[in-house]
Amino acid sequence: MKKLALFCMYTTVLLTSVSADEGMWLFNALPKRQLASQHGFEVTDEWAKHIMLSSVRFNSGGSASFISSNGLVLTNHHVASDTLYKLSTAEQNLASDGYYAASKEDELKAPDLELNQLVSIEDVTARVNAAVSAGMSPDAAAKARQAEMARIEQQSTEATGLRSDVVTLYGGGRYHLYQYKRYTDVRLVWAPEAQTAFFGGDADNFEFPRYCLDVTIFRVYENDKPANIEHFLANNPSGAREGDLVFVSGNPGRTQRILTPAALEYQRDHRMPRVLDLLRRKEILLQQYALGGPEQARRGQDDLFGIQNSRKAYTGMLAGLQNPGFIELKRSRQKLLQRSAGSSEPWEAIAEVQLQRVDLMDRMTSLRSNVYSIAEDLVLMAGEDQKPSEERLREFRDSNRQSLEQALFSPAPLYEDLERVQLADELARLVETRGGNDPLVIKVLAGKGPRERATELIAGTKLFEVESRKALAQAGQTGIANSDDALIQLAVTLENEYRAIREITEQLDEQERQAYAKITEAQFQAEGESVYPDATFTLRLAYGLVKSYQEDGQTIASQTTLGGSFGHEAAHGKTDDWILPDSWHQAKDAIDGSVPFNFVCTADIIGGNSGSPVVDRDGRMVGIIFDGNIQSLTADFYHSEEQGRAVAVHIAAVLEALNKIYHASSLAEQIGH
Amino acid sequence: MKKLALFCMYTTVLLTSVSADEGMWLFNALPKRQLASQHGFEVTDEWAKHIMLSSVRFNSGGSASFISSNGLVLTNHHVASDTLYKLSTAEQNLASDGYYAASKEDELKAPDLELNQLVSIEDVTARVNAAVSAGMSPDAAAKARQAEMARIEQQSTEATGLRSDVVTLYGGGRYHLYQYKRYTDVRLVWAPEAQTAFFGGDADNFEFPRYCLDVTIFRVYENDKPANIEHFLANNPSGAREGDLVFVSGNPGRTQRILTPAALEYQRDHRMPRVLDLLRRKEILLQQYALGGPEQARRGQDDLFGIQNSRKAYTGMLAGLQNPGFIELKRSRQKLLQRSAGSSEPWEAIAEVQLQRVDLMDRMTSLRSNVYSIAEDLVLMAGEDQKPSEERLREFRDSNRQSLEQALFSPAPLYEDLERVQLADELARLVETRGGNDPLVIKVLAGKGPRERATELIAGTKLFEVESRKALAQAGQTGIANSDDALIQLAVTLENEYRAIREITEQLDEQERQAYAKITEAQFQAEGESVYPDATFTLRLAYGLVKSYQEDGQTIASQTTLGGSFGHEAAHGKTDDWILPDSWHQAKDAIDGSVPFNFVCTADIIGGNSGSPVVDRDGRMVGIIFDGNIQSLTADFYHSEEQGRAVAVHIAAVLEALNKIYHASSLAEQIGH
Repeated sequence: MKKLALFCMYTTVLLTSVSADEGMWLFNALPKRQLASQHGFEVTDEWAKHIMLSSVRFNSGGSASFISSNGLVLTNHHVASDTLYKLSTAEQNLASDGYYAASKEDELKAPDLELNQLVSIEDVTARVNAAVSAGMSPDAAAKARQAEMARIEQQSTEATGLRSDVVTLYGGGRYHLYQYKRYTDVRLVWAPEAQTAFFGGDADNFEFPRYCLDVTIFRVYENDKPANIEHFLANNPSGAREGDLVFVSGNPGRTQRILTPAALEYQRDHRMPRVLDLLRRKEILLQQYALGGPEQARRGQDDLFGIQNSRKAYTGMLAGLQNPGFIELKRSRQKLLQRSAGSSEPWEAIAEVQLQRVDLMDRMTSLRSNVYSIAEDLVLMAGEDQKPSEERLREFRDSNRQSLEQALFSPAPLYEDLERVQLADELARLVETRGGNDPLVIKVLAGKGPRERATELIAGTKLFEVESRKALAQAGQTGIANSDDALIQLAVTLENEYRAIREITEQLDEQERQAYAKITEAQFQAEGESVYPDATFTLRLAYGLVKSYQEDGQTIASQTTLGGSFGHEAAHGKTDDWILPDSWHQAKDAIDGSVPFNFVCTADIIGGNSGSPVVDRDGRMVGIIFDGNIQSLTADFYHSEEQGRAVAVHIAAVLEALNKIYHASSLAEQIGH
Repeated sequence: MKKLALFCMYTTVLLTSVSADEGMWLFNALPKRQLASQHGFEVTDEWAKHIMLSSVRFNSGGSASFISSNGLVLTNHHVASDTLYKLSTAEQNLASDGYYAASKEDELKAPDLELNQLVSIEDVTARVNAAVSAGMSPDAAAKARQAEMARIEQQSTEATGLRSDVVTLYGGGRYHLYQYKRYTDVRLVWAPEAQTAFFGGDADNFEFPRYCLDVTIFRVYENDKPANIEHFLANNPSGAREGDLVFVSGNPGRTQRILTPAALEYQRDHRMPRVLDLLRRKEILLQQYALGGPEQARRGQDDLFGIQNSRKAYTGMLAGLQNPGFIELKRSRQKLLQRSAGSSEPWEAIAEVQLQRVDLMDRMTSLRSNVYSIAEDLVLMAGEDQKPSEERLREFRDSNRQSLEQALFSPAPLYEDLERVQLADELARLVETRGGNDPLVIKVLAGKGPRERATELIAGTKLFEVESRKALAQAGQTGIANSDDALIQLAVTLENEYRAIREITEQLDEQERQAYAKITEAQFQAEGESVYPDATFTLRLAYGLVKSYQEDGQTIASQTTLGGSFGHEAAHGKTDDWILPDSWHQAKDAIDGSVPFNFVCTADIIGGNSGSPVVDRDGRMVGIIFDGNIQSLTADFYHSEEQGRAVAVHIAAVLEALNKIYHASSLAEQIGH
């Protein structure tokens, strides 16, 4: 059954454009015809603009929306958790215990959050492509294209003061300039306990039915006052009934639906297995670290959650790729497109790139360590700042300097013991990946074992102090060259190899961009322009129905209720991750158990969509996305609505919880006004 | 300090033979001179024979000893856990709750245990080497050598009725014939709760100070009656004081101290990182399976414990190898030996073999699944049985048939859900390792994803039933060829590739054996014959002192006490793995808190030594080995007694616990008599 359904879906793709509710659509190319014909819904420009301007991107990786005129922003607890973690201490654990600022004075400033509101989109494809002339080497082409993109961004920033990003769409088929209003004074207003936000833990993650209050509320400030927000979402607590059409406006992080069979094979046989090995390695490492005691458990918790989440997601993605039927269908599609294009050249070019990517895998240089990353950034920045902005590595251009410095000089705590454990593991991984006889490895270890060397490096760095980072940033290239900071010296040791790999990677990316641009043209020719591009962590609109589904012969209803939480708790014997917080037990009698809690819909989403508002035909919020079910995990490569579902918290549950459980009626009253 | 100590140790090795208490000595070549000169102890043949005959090997992987004339056998709880697990059900969990057979009628027969008592050793090197003539290809040489070893074993078995194994020592430098009395009716008498046997869990594993009652008592039967045992260990509850000389008689599983630098580099850069990736993968898999509920947790527990234990051990081993100083010293030693040998040829041959081993890594065919292993054995057996015994793969020879059948037809439970999860993961791993386009992988998956295919395979096999296994074993090659059992068909699909890889592996092993034989001769010439061979899961004697050590500037006393357990529990707030069983709390007042509980000594041990008796100069038992500390984890490659220690349960604690906590005085009275 499952295989057949998959086959049917791809047959559809081959013959027309996309399956029923598939698609993460650009706000400047919404699927108006499909929505009209399939759902009798007419998209007006006003409706779309209101949704777009009400949507918010968390640059830390997630989505959100404005929900009041006085700057309230609603997102997921797990999107906020990075900030909750950074605001926590050994004495006060906001990430697990929650927080409520009863007055504005109690609202806590996030150390390094940047929120973006998309205000305009412009097609700059012609200008970007004009910078690259035929016959240029991949290296020259990559540099010319990057420089032109940098110039466009720079000019836009200078003209408007807005954050300006040139976004590569369709793997290189189109380039759009996105302009964002930036909010950097973001304060925590309210977060529930992790026990309800992540009720059911790792076991329930990516499952349904669910009972999670996975939400947190921030407020954006300007000039030290709550920002005045023109476009925010009203809400509809009685919405999202079975069969309702809903829309999801958010920032899906990445999909890879354009990938050719050769690129998919690289993912299946090389990249994903490696990523999973890495994730499992880090999961065990953090579990072991947490055995040290409750404070260690707290320090490692945010990373551990993220890793477990990724491990479960990647496991599902790889399983999808390992189904032989899927790549088979992609091969048929490839043949069709090649016939339409009259050439197989771009597909062959992409296959060639994959071989080179495999060769690169054993040349790892970037150590996944928070404190080392700071050293690496400082070293690279000093070198990059010698060049004109448009010739620099992307993240070091003037147009990105504000965001870079916010991250680099963040006062968020870094823990020496945790950093030591992680750096030791990364040094061990460097030995494993490059081999113990590699000259660079020998230099890095300096005659010591990874653990001993990590201890020495952590003891020899001042980068835990923000002031030291600022001083090094200011001292520039001479400062770096003369620094006796152990981590800076390590980053200098690795710099040449890092740059060499980065250059090769960017050339390979350029070769792929040129090839995918040709494939996109073939696709447009064969299927018309109504094809949506892969996700790029930029704002998209998805749509679908609130819809139950079949699993193992049973109907899974599209909605759960607040009252159901207590039953779910009892069914698991109040053990482990299935214990509701005290606040819930105390409020049990006050809560209206029939209020809808979590619900599913067929909209096409993926990681990055977490926190996206779910709105109804009238543009009123009915819920907030926080997960996909396990059957949706193939979304990186294909959307399936037979069983695949997006999972959301109902807005009615948020309001009921604020009023009845968290005694936060004054906050609830602001929402939607 | 650590590096210096390591250097000193190896300097010693280079100049004389071995460091102070290093060595896992053969019972037919005990280090009499060293013991006399270093410890003033004279080994008599009578003393050695008594220890040897009192020692017991658990073929499931561990050591033990006879402790009474009526067949009592003392081993570790974690050596017994495989059997405890197999004797458990959803209703009665012996592995976690413990067991006590107050009368002989209550003693529970283990489903598939085989215990071995070593009775004689004979050097057969000349005969084994005579079978191989100069100029033979590695393939022919391997076959000729294997056949000769098989003939020796067969003749010995026929002549004596004893289990007869030709053991390869010094990596191929010597061949000894070991004859064992075999016990296959083994019954569980007493086991404590896992809470005390594994007190402190994964966190405390490989640590010291410790407070673990990691012991279990079995009884061997013959003709349905308790076996009459001539050689068993008396005990000395007041022994094992700081500074005492003690001996460990057990079966260390494997060390690799003979390895050349090239072979160590293969371990460091290829094999061990892969093994660790695999262990972490299985650890996460079993953790996820256990989230399904308490019964799943029980079903997966024994495997999970074993995997966590290995993961921690391998992590320590790899860390040792990644210390650049270690292989550097090995290179110096290599130079010295090459000068002594007048040739570098054997070292070059070994380096060449390592390259071929790397190439083989991506040709995985054996799926790590209990139920699939049965299918694989049945398929291979049917083919092997067509050949004369001495030409067969080792495990299918007549001399091993009894052991093979005991394992193959074991009534121990296999759980369909757990087997399905594990097989699905192994199929996924097959795709990852060989690549999704591999023709064999395509055949194995039969058009389905790994999970779907595993479901189909598990549903299509009858191998969960012992009778089906017996029927297939009896039906021979035709039966296998005509079988419609899904797993048998899968094993047939993989058979050719399995055999091809096995043949290459055996050729590589033979090339290494020939090279290591030459290196061993060079070593004998340079250092005399008083060199012990690497561990081979055969009986060895190690010795050392009960001795405290320094860690992070603190002295770690050599002994803990029963009373200390309660303090250790309190220090961890009675959480997670630090909760003593109810039986201990109830008996708290009755227990003599000053009784020694766990202690450490400098004896040279490794995995497989678990359960080994620790005896004093008079051959009386003072303890039972159950672990090494974290500093001893490099023992695969070198013994260090600066901080490295073997960890044992004191016999006094066993007796006190039986009497005061477990109300098993009638059992305690039998011990030592």
